Amino acid sequence: MNEDAVLIVGSMAFDDLELPTTSAKNVVGGAATYASLAASLYSPARIVAIVGEDFAEKDIQALNKRGIDTDGVEHVKGRTFRWAGRYDANLAGRTTLDTQLNVFANFRPKLPRAYKSSEYVLLANIHPALQLEVLDQVESPKAVFADTMNFWIEGEPDLLAKVLARVDVLVINDEEARQLAGVYPLPKAARLILHRGPKRLIIKRGEHGALLVDEAGMFWVPALVLDDVVDPTGAGDTFAGALIGHLASTGDLSPAGLRKSLFVAAAVASFCVQAVGTAKLARLTKEDVAARIAQLKALTQLPV
Amino acid sequence: MNEDAVLIVGSMAFDDLELPTTSAKNVVGGAATYASLAASLYSPARIVAIVGEDFAEKDIQALNKRGIDTDGVEHVKGRTFRWAGRYDANLAGRTTLDTQLNVFANFRPKLPRAYKSSEYVLLANIHPALQLEVLDQVESPKAVFADTMNFWIEGEPDLLAKVLARVDVLVINDEEARQLAGVYPLPKAARLILHRGPKRLIIKRGEHGALLVDEAGMFWVPALVLDDVVDPTGAGDTFAGALIGHLASTGDLSPAGLRKSLFVAAAVASFCVQAVGTAKLARLTKEDVAARIAQLKALTQLPV
Repeated sequence: MNEDAVLIVGSMAFDDLELPTTSAKNVVGGAATYASLAASLYSPARIVAIVGEDFAEKDIQALNKRGIDTDGVEHVKGRTFRWAGRYDANLAGRTTLDTQLNVFANFRPKLPRAYKSSEYVLLANIHPALQLEVLDQVESPKAVFADTMNFWIEGEPDLLAKVLARVDVLVINDEEARQLAGVYPLPKAARLILHRGPKRLIIKRGEHGALLVDEAGMFWVPALVLDDVVDPTGAGDTFAGALIGHLASTGDLSPAGLRKSLFVAAAVASFCVQAVGTAKLARLTKEDVAARIAQLKALTQLPV
Repeated sequence: MNEDAVLIVGSMAFDDLELPTTSAKNVVGGAATYASLAASLYSPARIVAIVGEDFAEKDIQALNKRGIDTDGVEHVKGRTFRWAGRYDANLAGRTTLDTQLNVFANFRPKLPRAYKSSEYVLLANIHPALQLEVLDQVESPKAVFADTMNFWIEGEPDLLAKVLARVDVLVINDEEARQLAGVYPLPKAARLILHRGPKRLIIKRGEHGALLVDEAGMFWVPALVLDDVVDPTGAGDTFAGALIGHLASTGDLSPAGLRKSLFVAAAVASFCVQAVGTAKLARLTKEDVAARIAQLKALTQLPV
């Protein structure tokens, strides 16, 4: 067990959530928040992000309590990024009701000196120009993970192409994979995307789990099948954060190592969806996760 | 390897298919056709069904060539059951354009004497009253599998309840499971359904595979992730047919045995969707299937 550090760059936000069973306002969210809480279960995690004056010191301290280094969180005048969304009755789809970039509009990630030697880097979904700026500031990362979204796939294809060429593991959802590749079948989409740079592709499929495509082929990690899914917000970022955090702790990016860490990621993400925001994630222990990994194995592994 | 026989009762039909990449008319289909072709790979299969004068002798012979006993196929005056449907561009959904019951409207399943001792029985999706009539004619089956649909769940709840009480393995899709149980989360739906009689429930989820719920818990068999899905018609019946056919050959309905047979079923179903109608299924060999099972294992099984 080494202690390689994970650098996470992405949004910190307040979310207003209209969920089938409840609704909640001003929920602390953002990709960097979810991902760092998940990663910090297994490795030292540090964030580069930006927040406004409305972001409370106690919310920063909640991250610090989990060992997350928040020296890279810039505090500026104005309001924090805000997102409001409404989920379908079955939680499969969601509609964005409002997006206020606020201070996030002027985000230019600046890495504190101590962060530049980070071994594992997760570029959450931000403008690809900013993802490139981060890569220019890290010295010699062992592995770079990146996410993106339809907005950049459509609007910034050239910059995104430059990001893809420098990424080890691309982590996107199925719709994004199809849009990025311009084809519908996922195996073909994966081949086209891997041709553009990433050594490995992970396609997130919500309640249906995730597909890894790497040099050893394709691997399907399931999602736990749960009765009490409350809020899917941040599940994908939680998955990516747990994955990179666990990989940083094992240092094993081999096909076998990656497959094992995917089970950890799916287990951590299963807790995220069972409560609003980060409520459950922020209290999680490795022992909680270990019990879920056993359930995931019972769900998928054939008796020998 | 014993030679327990599989009895399949269900529709034989002509389908008109509007598919994203092609369209085809008068395609030989129906649940009994797909299921018996799949089952016959592993066990002697026999069908009880009804066809009209438009059903060609060569189409019956195509089944006989695969060793399927068609003595229980009743030939009557009139036209065979016909279904016409259009699939979405991504094949996830479909719209029924036309249904003509024709001779199927007067179907009363009559088992030839030799069929009454069948050990394994698959009641494909037909009126629950007919499913009960079949059960009254079989002597002492080792295992009864049944399918149903929204139409009977809504329209014949009492008769369907009687079927459920006599079924060992219920094989339905996720929408049907939710409708039958009246709740959305699948684990809860499964508990409610198992409370009504079936010892085991298999929930088919199309491209996302299938979930088994039995006394050992929940198990998720994946679907192969394919580039060339052409026609999903009959995939669920193929899955059920291969499952019961393989189980009849192993005789092992233990949790471990059932899980292994589910991989065979998923492998056989993966061929069904790669061609229009039964084109690929009708030529399949056990060796073809074995190669696919290896792919399914690589897709899901963790390195030890």
